[in-house]
Amino acid sequence: MPKLTFQSDVSWSGEGVRSIAQIGDRQVVIDEPKSLGGTDQGPNPVEYLLAALGGCISILVSMFADRHKVELKGVKVHVEGDLDPDGFMEKNPDVRPGFQEIRYRIEIDSPSPAERIQALIEHVERVCPVKDTLTGVPTVSLRD
Amino acid sequence: MPKLTFQSDVSWSGEGVRSIAQIGDRQVVIDEPKSLGGTDQGPNPVEYLLAALGGCISILVSMFADRHKVELKGVKVHVEGDLDPDGFMEKNPDVRPGFQEIRYRIEIDSPSPAERIQALIEHVERVCPVKDTLTGVPTVSLRD
Repeated sequence: MPKLTFQSDVSWSGEGVRSIAQIGDRQVVIDEPKSLGGTDQGPNPVEYLLAALGGCISILVSMFADRHKVELKGVKVHVEGDLDPDGFMEKNPDVRPGFQEIRYRIEIDSPSPAERIQALIEHVERVCPVKDTLTGVPTVSLRD
Repeated sequence: MPKLTFQSDVSWSGEGVRSIAQIGDRQVVIDEPKSLGGTDQGPNPVEYLLAALGGCISILVSMFADRHKVELKGVKVHVEGDLDPDGFMEKNPDVRPGFQEIRYRIEIDSPSPAERIQALIEHVERVCPVKDTLTGVPTVSLRD
């Protein structure tokens, strides 16, 4: 399959810090809670990042279940991450700006044998694009 | 400020691969395009990841503009990333499952002096939590 390029265009709304991400023909509202200077009209960027990881795992479990002969009744993925605002506020040089750790728990509701479910989970964790990206990806700032 | 823990709970919808992320009291639909086995009812996980990066940059530009005495008329952030499906489909062991590169362009509409705008951009790029997380974060799978 040829290489794919995904994209999003984000614009500041002009009100507070609220921003709108255009993804194809869809718009996604991104804001911050009042405690972080926003007006809480949408999830914040780091919450979308966690949802992306959980969504990637959930989607891949449902996509690869048949291959592992796992009958799926349900999939739930809990994702959480720790972030110390002293990092991005530059109050403490020893604290990184981003997440210090991201944890997730995968719960699969299935009558299938445990070893097949385990093989499915291991497969998904091995190939998850979002999880892999979080291990470190080159980011390039394009200057005009 | 104390350390914050952000979270999201994602559930498979039971239809195709479509999944729903619960973030606080909001629900976010995550799907795949038909070309990747979905029903295209929402952006896919890697698109949310790119939107999270663009949203983080846009929000921080609007948040820190005053500090750099930059009068903001508008902020646009274009984000794109390359992904080769041969990676997560395990068709080529030399291809990583996730993004190979993520590129972004920040456009600021402002009558303020260029050097202040440049200082604002450098500040945002230095402290952006999503960008920092993409440089590599420990992810921990929690087993019951």
